Amino acid sequence: MQNIITGTGSYIPEKIQKNSDFLKQEFYNENQSKIPNSNEIVIKKFKAITGIEERRYVSSDLNNSDIGTIAAKRAIENANITPEDIDFVIVGHNFGDVREGYTQCDILPSIAARIKHNLKIKNPNCVAYDVIFGCPGWLQGVIQADIFIKSGEAKTCLIIGSETLSRVVDPFDRDSMIYSDGAGACILQLGKDNETGILSHASQSHTLDEAYYLYYGSSYNPTIDQGTNYIKMHGRKIYEFALNHVPNAMNIALKKSGLGIESISKILIHQANEKMDEAIIKRFYKLHDKEMPEDIMPMSIHKLGNSSVATVPTLFDLILKNQIEGHEIKKGDVLLLASVGAGMNINAMVYKY
Amino acid sequence: MQNIITGTGSYIPEKIQKNSDFLKQEFYNENQSKIPNSNEIVIKKFKAITGIEERRYVSSDLNNSDIGTIAAKRAIENANITPEDIDFVIVGHNFGDVREGYTQCDILPSIAARIKHNLKIKNPNCVAYDVIFGCPGWLQGVIQADIFIKSGEAKTCLIIGSETLSRVVDPFDRDSMIYSDGAGACILQLGKDNETGILSHASQSHTLDEAYYLYYGSSYNPTIDQGTNYIKMHGRKIYEFALNHVPNAMNIALKKSGLGIESISKILIHQANEKMDEAIIKRFYKLHDKEMPEDIMPMSIHKLGNSSVATVPTLFDLILKNQIEGHEIKKGDVLLLASVGAGMNINAMVYKY
Repeated sequence: MQNIITGTGSYIPEKIQKNSDFLKQEFYNENQSKIPNSNEIVIKKFKAITGIEERRYVSSDLNNSDIGTIAAKRAIENANITPEDIDFVIVGHNFGDVREGYTQCDILPSIAARIKHNLKIKNPNCVAYDVIFGCPGWLQGVIQADIFIKSGEAKTCLIIGSETLSRVVDPFDRDSMIYSDGAGACILQLGKDNETGILSHASQSHTLDEAYYLYYGSSYNPTIDQGTNYIKMHGRKIYEFALNHVPNAMNIALKKSGLGIESISKILIHQANEKMDEAIIKRFYKLHDKEMPEDIMPMSIHKLGNSSVATVPTLFDLILKNQIEGHEIKKGDVLLLASVGAGMNINAMVYKY
Repeated sequence: MQNIITGTGSYIPEKIQKNSDFLKQEFYNENQSKIPNSNEIVIKKFKAITGIEERRYVSSDLNNSDIGTIAAKRAIENANITPEDIDFVIVGHNFGDVREGYTQCDILPSIAARIKHNLKIKNPNCVAYDVIFGCPGWLQGVIQADIFIKSGEAKTCLIIGSETLSRVVDPFDRDSMIYSDGAGACILQLGKDNETGILSHASQSHTLDEAYYLYYGSSYNPTIDQGTNYIKMHGRKIYEFALNHVPNAMNIALKKSGLGIESISKILIHQANEKMDEAIIKRFYKLHDKEMPEDIMPMSIHKLGNSSVATVPTLFDLILKNQIEGHEIKKGDVLLLASVGAGMNINAMVYKY
């Protein structure tokens, strides 16, 4: 018996931050020199590479665990279960709760404990924990839940990916325009057949040379306190890394599923950067001497940016709720979910809907 | 086949912070009033309740992931494996890396990714992630590894508990004297029989009323920036909670093991507070109408304080290496491991050595 996703939910913050909102921002290079180009040019280039036109930020009264709770409630409702049915609350994130205007990441207690508290779940045997695994943290939580259910440790798991990157960006770094806030969630339960559900998965951690490709570092603006850290990345290295390794990890999951590449209906990939995502999927098809099919890759990055752990579950939820134009998921469709991020971690999952 | 711990290791920081080192510290109550008693009286009472005489702090050049790496290397050597044999690196912690003199918790990348990097493990299929589950995080990592090995996802797991609480204490809070730094680790592998190894485990998260019994809050000293958070606890509530719930969770694990209470040779409980630990174990025996046996509870808290996730694996390692006077673990001994902490989370495991 395979495990199936019986409900999904997401939270998309209301505040829209457009590319044009960055027109007056001062940007610096990694070497702390001012970027000589005009912001018009910087933003135009940014949009051409990442595809991002706008992104969402949480309002100042909300924290990461709050938006994770909203997504969780929607997934619970969508699955038509009660919160007391849940055996595990698993949350993927990378910064915990960060209050507006402050710089500390708060994970005491865990974000899962906070969300379980907010959901008013009484059952003490419902185990709540966070998994820290970079952007692939939500998918890794689903993989862990899959193993728990298969081994009889659980029947129903709630897995949430939630992040407020707007609270940890260095505004003087162009890359700050990539990051967004959001939350996505799903309910995973034991299915009723061997046909549908999670068919296979694969996970990797590349740490030898790559561990610090995404890191917590000082502002690029030398006049800002250099003791305060923000999310930082070596973009070019990540791009090359992703192209070299993500198609292979996707392929490992595909092989384990026993299906051929022509079975795949949709690829739901972490919304990191449009050009990078396209290049990854093209290379994945090239491994099989095939061209990337049209419409294989639904995208939400143009309007939602990169909300880390939240992108894949949010995209999944939006497609199921007919909110991604031109894309739908039908009974029997084979989905390939994939993610890459800090660690550097990669994972992939083959799911038959 | 049960899974067995084939190696253990720990790191005990060199710097000894004695109770007398707090004699000149100003202490404040939760309501931010100065504590009227002399520090001699405060410290005497503290020692009578917690049992703590001294604790260990890391030197300023070391971070949490560094000491976790040292404990991991020792466990790998003790298990007589090579780092490339490891399928999972799982790290329990609550604050990530916190640099000396700074207040931000750094978990980008995860502590597991940093430790895997430090161990120079090349294999990308060795998956590195952190589990955030309060003080029971290390034991929860062992439980997850047990499930992974049983379900065929892994053969060899490295599980580390590492914490530098000295970097997150409010010096104006008496409770700061409880906290300590340290790291412990073990290697878990598939055993060769059904007699020895992990027999059973139980986990709970009590979040309805208890989620914020341990929390990240402002200094008790009102002249200190109230926007900076430190580890904080509602001690009395935690004490009552632990007494009411930990014996029951230990009992769930014991029942699952199929063994009677008289089979237990040693109880390795989270070194939170000596009086609380004794009261928990007395109540556990009382559930079976028995008196707590003498010498059932080896303690390290007097000299090592409460190093969160690190206490149980460190205590285990020290006993195995004959460094806890009057205690040894012999072939065939049944151990009950138990922990309680932020979340509020509880777990317990029955292990036959």
